Amino acid sequence: MSKLVPPHGGKGLVCCLLEGSALEAEKKKAAGLKQIEISSRAKGDLIMMGIGGFSPLSGFMKKADWKSVCEKMLLTCGCFWPVPVTLDISAADAKSVKVGDEVALVRNGEIMATMKLEEIYEMTEADKKWECELVFKGEGPDSQKFWEVAPNDHPGVKMVLAQKEYNIAGPVKVLSQGEFPTKFPGVYMTPAQLRTKMDERNWQKVAALQLRNPMHRSHEYLAKIAVEVCDGVVIHSLVGSLKPGDIPAEVRVRCIDTLVEKYFVKDNIIQAGYPLDMRYAGPREALLHATFRQNYGINNLIVGRDHAGVGDFYGMFEAQEIFRKMPVPAEDGKRLLCQPLNIDWTFYCKKCDGMASMRTCPHGKEDRVILSGTKLRKMLSEGAEVPDHFGRDEVLAILREYYSGLTEKVEIKMQSAAAGKGM
Amino acid sequence: MSKLVPPHGGKGLVCCLLEGSALEAEKKKAAGLKQIEISSRAKGDLIMMGIGGFSPLSGFMKKADWKSVCEKMLLTCGCFWPVPVTLDISAADAKSVKVGDEVALVRNGEIMATMKLEEIYEMTEADKKWECELVFKGEGPDSQKFWEVAPNDHPGVKMVLAQKEYNIAGPVKVLSQGEFPTKFPGVYMTPAQLRTKMDERNWQKVAALQLRNPMHRSHEYLAKIAVEVCDGVVIHSLVGSLKPGDIPAEVRVRCIDTLVEKYFVKDNIIQAGYPLDMRYAGPREALLHATFRQNYGINNLIVGRDHAGVGDFYGMFEAQEIFRKMPVPAEDGKRLLCQPLNIDWTFYCKKCDGMASMRTCPHGKEDRVILSGTKLRKMLSEGAEVPDHFGRDEVLAILREYYSGLTEKVEIKMQSAAAGKGM
Repeated sequence: MSKLVPPHGGKGLVCCLLEGSALEAEKKKAAGLKQIEISSRAKGDLIMMGIGGFSPLSGFMKKADWKSVCEKMLLTCGCFWPVPVTLDISAADAKSVKVGDEVALVRNGEIMATMKLEEIYEMTEADKKWECELVFKGEGPDSQKFWEVAPNDHPGVKMVLAQKEYNIAGPVKVLSQGEFPTKFPGVYMTPAQLRTKMDERNWQKVAALQLRNPMHRSHEYLAKIAVEVCDGVVIHSLVGSLKPGDIPAEVRVRCIDTLVEKYFVKDNIIQAGYPLDMRYAGPREALLHATFRQNYGINNLIVGRDHAGVGDFYGMFEAQEIFRKMPVPAEDGKRLLCQPLNIDWTFYCKKCDGMASMRTCPHGKEDRVILSGTKLRKMLSEGAEVPDHFGRDEVLAILREYYSGLTEKVEIKMQSAAAGKGM
Repeated sequence: MSKLVPPHGGKGLVCCLLEGSALEAEKKKAAGLKQIEISSRAKGDLIMMGIGGFSPLSGFMKKADWKSVCEKMLLTCGCFWPVPVTLDISAADAKSVKVGDEVALVRNGEIMATMKLEEIYEMTEADKKWECELVFKGEGPDSQKFWEVAPNDHPGVKMVLAQKEYNIAGPVKVLSQGEFPTKFPGVYMTPAQLRTKMDERNWQKVAALQLRNPMHRSHEYLAKIAVEVCDGVVIHSLVGSLKPGDIPAEVRVRCIDTLVEKYFVKDNIIQAGYPLDMRYAGPREALLHATFRQNYGINNLIVGRDHAGVGDFYGMFEAQEIFRKMPVPAEDGKRLLCQPLNIDWTFYCKKCDGMASMRTCPHGKEDRVILSGTKLRKMLSEGAEVPDHFGRDEVLAILREYYSGLTEKVEIKMQSAAAGKGM
């Protein structure tokens, strides 16, 4: 019998993905339905509803749920849920459908799902701003005024403000997992697949390392602390979309493969990927990360420095603090059971002669190997030496290769442009 | 309000130590009572009963409790307790007292306590062997036959077999904490004192590092893993008696002082000592270590390799396994609430470029810095270089000084002997 934490919501894994003949029939029907183009974010959300990653959700939220989630982090049924999961459509599309209709949800030409409309509601500019205020709110001085100060600096806020004028809500039937199963074989896993893998290893206390950046020694250390105190650790990468300039999932997955191969005991570690896009909602997104991890059978989420943050919008450890403030429904099934495993800022320290954190290292700045992302990117793209102990050589080599490819592309572009000019 | 785990047994701290005028009156009375000389182990047990470290015990065990604890790790009241806490007297002494008497318990000339006799019971050779079989039992091939094979190789078994012919049981009034408060100022602490210190820091999840050896980097690493995942860690040294050849508490305390000073963040660590003697009961003693830690307000005990073991009597991780097998009374108060924080064998690994354990390091023996205690002692006493990364220089310097002192003493002895011969 599985010892893993049960899925969130008390109803087991709620999976909206069709299979076999039901899938074929629905596909046929979907081709004849009104086609609605959806965002990249909505595609990720749909796949999660398909594979049970968003249990107990089985569709996009109605207005009352949206409102309750924004305000109280609770669904109207009383179940914990930290961020809105909504689907926007244009005013024109909204006028051409009515409650009771079925529509096809399309992304880049592929029908991802069908949906039965239970509600169509307007999202005014004021509604969107209100959502942003509550969901992307941090304690930092700028965090509540991003829409005035610099909405474009916050990719999550930008995404919400760019939503179309209406939301549609209702249950979905998911028809595809997109490119993920073929693009990330052996890494992209459904909650059921990951649970089976962990049950085979008889795991009970499992930690997830949320990852959307290449894995350097500071991340390796987080994972290894968790390996010491848990049955096993899942290096769980976001393989959906990120903001421009971030390192693509393919490259990150190769880095992790290498690191696991050379620096981990394989029995204690699993690499897996999930199909969501980043929302950059900081503390609230940390809660979302814990919520869907519970569905994957994971009962501890490593929460480090500036989890799911962006720029300086959130305080360094706000994502750890929100776990102490979140609502705790009385009923087991409605409560979030995945706990935070809070770990401080980690780094290599020369005096400690090893990895350390602000909680364990009493030494000064000058003894610590700390690099900003910007500085590291510069070093890698210029082929400069990265300071000792910062990353593993094998991982840095992959990143150097990636950055040199980027540089070549830019050079080729510039050469063709120059050649074109000469003609 | 304190967030710390409540004392074991559901009755708060049960402290048998008298104070003020009650202490003075009892001391006066005790001088006129029959004096019974007790063992070093019994002295440690008495002080623990005095300061609440052995809550809910308030005296030495009667036969029914002794039997139930040996067999089931439960007191007759149903409360968890892992090892017998009994007091032996000679047949001659047993004949000179009767139930209802009060006696004075004396160690090296100091009256430690008075006791009201509620039961006097024989401990035959068969009884002692039976106790040893159950309490010192490991899963190792030799562990159950120590009394035939080599009783003298197991200091704990030797101690039980050397007990006198009778046990006396009954409640105690403790009159002294012995030399501990003056010998280890600031380090020796009662449960109430340690709890106050931890409450001031607002700690809730606290781990203890049990220590009876000097603290090398492998121990430092255990403590630091715990620092990462708990509110704080208590380096909790046994300052009672050890087997011959072990390093005395004074030296160990100095090593820890230095280490805390130079390599820890002081807010997250407390050094403390407790007055017990080692029993070398391996897995069962690990449970005792967890039980009295709960009284000290500690809810996690770091359990590493061969906890409280001796020689090859126990399997490397039997002390971790016993926590999964121990009885779990239904009532909260009667159940052990201090959890094991199991950590694998730790060492420095050159390829990992830092501290690691068998759970995190995939590399070979040749990459790891591992030293046996015997080898290390030889290096230190001969002034030889200890391999890099094994210990902190500042700690090794203290140990070198201690061993060179030992060598000098031996040399002086030999010189005097030689001089004597020559005369």
